Amino acid sequence: MKYNALLERMGEVNDLLCSQSMLDWDARTMMPPGGAHTRAKQLATLKVFARNHLVADETRRLLDAAEAETVNLPGDSVERTICTQVREAIDYHLRIPAALVHKRTEIGSKGQHVWAKARQEGDYASFAPVLEETLELNREMAECIGYEAHPYDALMYRFEPGETVATLQPLFAALRGGLLPLVQAIGEKKAPRVDFLQRPFPVEKQLEFALKMARKLGYDTDRGRLDLTVHPFEISFTRNDVRITTRVNDEWMPKSLFGTLHETGHAVYEQYCDPAYTRTPLATDLIGLYAVGGVSFGAHESQSRLFENHVGRSREFWEHNYGELRDTFPEQLAGIDAETFWRAVNRVEPGFIRVESDELTYDFHIMLRVDLEASLIDGSLSVADLPEAWNAKVKEYLGLDVPNDRLGVLQDVHWSSGQVGTFCNYTIGNVMAGQLFAEAKKDERVRAGLATAEYAPLREWMTEHVHRHGRRYTREQLLERATGQGLEPSFYMEHLSAKYSEIYGL
Amino acid sequence: MKYNALLERMGEVNDLLCSQSMLDWDARTMMPPGGAHTRAKQLATLKVFARNHLVADETRRLLDAAEAETVNLPGDSVERTICTQVREAIDYHLRIPAALVHKRTEIGSKGQHVWAKARQEGDYASFAPVLEETLELNREMAECIGYEAHPYDALMYRFEPGETVATLQPLFAALRGGLLPLVQAIGEKKAPRVDFLQRPFPVEKQLEFALKMARKLGYDTDRGRLDLTVHPFEISFTRNDVRITTRVNDEWMPKSLFGTLHETGHAVYEQYCDPAYTRTPLATDLIGLYAVGGVSFGAHESQSRLFENHVGRSREFWEHNYGELRDTFPEQLAGIDAETFWRAVNRVEPGFIRVESDELTYDFHIMLRVDLEASLIDGSLSVADLPEAWNAKVKEYLGLDVPNDRLGVLQDVHWSSGQVGTFCNYTIGNVMAGQLFAEAKKDERVRAGLATAEYAPLREWMTEHVHRHGRRYTREQLLERATGQGLEPSFYMEHLSAKYSEIYGL
Repeated sequence: MKYNALLERMGEVNDLLCSQSMLDWDARTMMPPGGAHTRAKQLATLKVFARNHLVADETRRLLDAAEAETVNLPGDSVERTICTQVREAIDYHLRIPAALVHKRTEIGSKGQHVWAKARQEGDYASFAPVLEETLELNREMAECIGYEAHPYDALMYRFEPGETVATLQPLFAALRGGLLPLVQAIGEKKAPRVDFLQRPFPVEKQLEFALKMARKLGYDTDRGRLDLTVHPFEISFTRNDVRITTRVNDEWMPKSLFGTLHETGHAVYEQYCDPAYTRTPLATDLIGLYAVGGVSFGAHESQSRLFENHVGRSREFWEHNYGELRDTFPEQLAGIDAETFWRAVNRVEPGFIRVESDELTYDFHIMLRVDLEASLIDGSLSVADLPEAWNAKVKEYLGLDVPNDRLGVLQDVHWSSGQVGTFCNYTIGNVMAGQLFAEAKKDERVRAGLATAEYAPLREWMTEHVHRHGRRYTREQLLERATGQGLEPSFYMEHLSAKYSEIYGL
Repeated sequence: MKYNALLERMGEVNDLLCSQSMLDWDARTMMPPGGAHTRAKQLATLKVFARNHLVADETRRLLDAAEAETVNLPGDSVERTICTQVREAIDYHLRIPAALVHKRTEIGSKGQHVWAKARQEGDYASFAPVLEETLELNREMAECIGYEAHPYDALMYRFEPGETVATLQPLFAALRGGLLPLVQAIGEKKAPRVDFLQRPFPVEKQLEFALKMARKLGYDTDRGRLDLTVHPFEISFTRNDVRITTRVNDEWMPKSLFGTLHETGHAVYEQYCDPAYTRTPLATDLIGLYAVGGVSFGAHESQSRLFENHVGRSREFWEHNYGELRDTFPEQLAGIDAETFWRAVNRVEPGFIRVESDELTYDFHIMLRVDLEASLIDGSLSVADLPEAWNAKVKEYLGLDVPNDRLGVLQDVHWSSGQVGTFCNYTIGNVMAGQLFAEAKKDERVRAGLATAEYAPLREWMTEHVHRHGRRYTREQLLERATGQGLEPSFYMEHLSAKYSEIYGL
């Protein structure tokens, strides 16, 4: 079978990409500083080899034969879906010169160290040249990929196929329309107390509790582990090894706890992909050249936001799990009940840092980044002017004056890793999470489980409708199959409106 | 320059092999158990890609051109040495089918997990099938590589080029002749007390002290790190990231301490290779397909044994460093002086476990393994009969009855990783260490340093004569250049004789 030979070849591509992810995980958790430069070369080589193996003449010969061999199968069969995806990926990569890919991977790995230092010192100027180089490479990339309306569309394709500057505009408008009145109304109300979250919480105990909750939500530590890093992430090397990371603030407990639940959502998406898809294109992002089973970055974010916010920040969750938390931190949480805790972890407070922002104002952080990225890419905004533009947007959306670039333009890891065009996924993930969670709760087992702190039914529902499919369906197909319609923001807005009305008495 | 193009191509081979080592490090220190199977595939793919890239038509075209381009340079120039090594490696690998390499890598990674479990349970039968498969693959390998006298010679070539069953016989005979009377004489003397080494030593403090000593000996932690593992090792991903591992017994302190000094010796060999050799064949084992800068495994072992034994177990070392050790463990070492400590860590006591054996009986462990491996490979010994043969050798050499396979045939990681033919290196390393250390001490700065706990002069002497050369010279050339002669066991025997005569009053 030529089809099987094609699969094995794609398995090798997956091996190379899993290796790349392994080196990336290490670079961000374990690697000594001296290793950065040669690690960048290793990462670049792995990506180039994966790309070259994918587009090689031999692959194309096998693909031609596999397509001929499977032509009589249904169009939506696994076999034909895989052939179509491989064909599409080859076409995509043949439009981008290998040298450009190599350069971007290299600047990406080197950039993370420059950024980490710049961020620590609040020194935007030292990061600016890397950012300029990253943008220029991405502009070149966009020209190679091609686009109809805006070069940014070409860059988003890798992360969120189908989304464009034009499709995002009405979505963002709808969100702004729903969010701004809520935030304003909340601003006039008394905020829940959060003082007890700022007491000293020992790092080890925080990690232990967070991991316990992650496991309760379905994270399988026989196929994963939790480590510390600067900018938390989830990463996988097949469904059999899916790792999460967190950072711990010993005087702001929610960071690590909800960060871990967030990465747990990403992790279960990977861990419960159909085992039959392991090492196949249905568990490999052949466009982004990344070993990931989720169908889009937005779909991936739907799972992280769902486990973090819809589950982890729900009243029901803390009704059942707060006792264990208080047993873990009896002194810090003395006199605090579950209700008070739940309100505290849902406090709305516009802030500077995206990853620390509350559920309600989060999308403003995303919208400003998407707008700025698009402007940087089309050249209407310069790297030199970026901090000022950033700060102006923060003022406009959140009403805040950014005191320094550490709290502003230097906060995100993304650009330092060579990535442009990924931010929209966060908001798409929020919207999708609302939609999927509303649908899941129509299932009686899921509801009963949430009401008794049994999260297996929810996880299984998500596995049935989302996780197991890997990349078999497009994001919109997945949503249609799971919920009967494409991306629809009303569920997300209803969730926010209901929760915050209750907490703030709106 | 075609030569430069060849170098860049070899740089990619190095990148792939460094990636392979990275995945191997992770598999042995960090990986969750579920990852084993797909990790094995990833490791196999990386090795196959490295091999294929090395032997590819394009590489051979570049090599032809590079050879032509450099033909007028001196025969021992870096350029011509590299061309010669690449040519030799291509010839070597073209004799071995890629499928065989792939199978061996795969059994190797899977085998480690089977072995770890078998070892834990003392269950040789569950490891035997993996060993049988490993041996059969290695026999096939030997036939492909070719040999004159014994198939084992072909397998040793990868680890210790030039050594054969025939060359080892006189060396082993000389060692046995020198060692047996010493061990016998010592057996009649009163052993130094070691009771205080068996007190509870907290793991964290042990690691901290061991790493402090490693740094003192020259280990650069900006380009390295120390982690825990089951079977300690050193591994590198270029000289810029050289990692060591140890295992800690909280009731037998010397294990982790001297184990760490041992790996430190390996690590400094890699860390102080000429930076100009980074990613070149002079820092890549193109025969073994392993990213390592040392010229042979024996040469590598010379550095680990030198730092562990000649430095770390010397009276001088503890005269200066014991104060710090006692400050670290004031209760455990109360009433123990440096002299008593030094004698304790040099106690001779024939035992079952190679990695726990004393300096004097160590070579018996090696000689028995080399003999058994050679017999397993030529078929004169079966896998089923191995435990019995093992136990008989232990009785013959060490006078001990092996109580179970955990303390016998299952103790080493080597076979589980697919390796056969590597053991001789340990003894060659011991012999070389004695020879190099004797030569180094002729240097006044080195002697003055050792006498004042300043180890930079020794490390620099080794860097000058050993480390920096990477794989530029053969082991024998290296020894000739450093000491004026090839491998010569008398220095090693003199060192052992002098030290143990002093300790045991022979």
